[in-house]
Amino acid sequence: MRSYRKELWFCTQKRREFINITPLLEECVRESGIQDGLLLCNAMHITASVFINDDEEGLHEDFERWLEKLAPEKPYHQYKHNVGEDNADAHLKRTIMGREVVIAVTDGKLDLGPWEQVFYGEFDGRRRKRVLVKIIGE
Amino acid sequence: MRSYRKELWFCTQKRREFINITPLLEECVRESGIQDGLLLCNAMHITASVFINDDEEGLHEDFERWLEKLAPEKPYHQYKHNVGEDNADAHLKRTIMGREVVIAVTDGKLDLGPWEQVFYGEFDGRRRKRVLVKIIGE
Amino acid sequence: MRSYRKELWFCTQKRREFINITPLLEECVRESGIQDGLLLCNAMHITASVFINDDEEGLHEDFERWLEKLAPEKPYHQYKHNVGEDNADAHLKRTIMGREVVIAVTDGKLDLGPWEQVFYGEFDGRRRKRVLVKIIGE
Repeated sequence: MRSYRKELWFCTQKRREFINITPLLEECVRESGIQDGLLLCNAMHITASVFINDDEEGLHEDFERWLEKLAPEKPYHQYKHNVGEDNADAHLKRTIMGREVVIAVTDGKLDLGPWEQVFYGEFDGRRRKRVLVKIIGE
Repeated sequence: MRSYRKELWFCTQKRREFINITPLLEECVRESGIQDGLLLCNAMHITASVFINDDEEGLHEDFERWLEKLAPEKPYHQYKHNVGEDNADAHLKRTIMGREVVIAVTDGKLDLGPWEQVFYGEFDGRRRKRVLVKIIGE
Repeated sequence: MRSYRKELWFCTQKRREFINITPLLEECVRESGIQDGLLLCNAMHITASVFINDDEEGLHEDFERWLEKLAPEKPYHQYKHNVGEDNADAHLKRTIMGREVVIAVTDGKLDLGPWEQVFYGEFDGRRRKRVLVKIIGE
């Protein structure tokens, strides 16, 4: 069994942002030399997400509006967590979107469906935060 | 380390449907000959889900009503994604239900709790779509 | 490849409770002797969750109120599942929070971000229920 580990760092300009990290993960698989196995990719922060969906701008706007409806940012005082903080909504939004994805590696490539793209979902950005990539296999 | 890969295809009659795929996954584990490891099962489409819950009809009706409340299908124009498409709600519903499950394989069997059943959750059906099964172990 | 399996049992005093299980998982990794691999931790029951977030009391109260808003416990008769049962809401709440987490194991330790803590989320407690820990690696 072989294994590979890498941290990917991000610093978004806005509080909330989606970044397509599929090319970065493909590079990790190439670097690892692993032909067959499983890749774990997870946010290492609890106000961010890694998820798989469509790389379509309209849908990303829908996600933004939908998450604001389910877990609104403001008013800040509606959340008990917001004592000296203002990011309780980011913890909830990331819960909806998920912390991690596990992706099969087959023939040295990410084994994704035709429209599957992997995103870093930032919900409390404007500071450096990271994602872990771990691959095991052969 | 051994590995196994299979695609399972589905074509539902309704737009939304839940299909119990536990027997299919058990067959995959048998076919793989893997005694001990991890099984990944994920939708390869971004408007479908693989999730674990109860095989109980009333609960499935509750899921349907609940998902329609959280992410209603109509009116279609409420979503920016719905330009030449009508399935934005399916992307959101699948986000709630999850893309994938990871299940332990122990003694050549799915290591599930007593009531855990694995489902394919279709939210934009009536066409052929597939699920990936990847098992690694020994 | 080596593998490790353990069941962790819980019996909460309240219907809903969050228990920080990070120290228990660290002990599992030590016991396993595995230096490098993947750890799967999942609820074996379909009304409970394993998730990663902050160990902060205010946030946990926010989660409780938020989940009650998205999937209220009462009135019981609003759910078709509640025929001789009263826990349909627990199935929905656990869906939001997630069944499982997959965590990288690196240098014989859980490879978590600085604030990541793993929780058992109980939504229909006051009885003995269990969590599965499976580690594969080398």
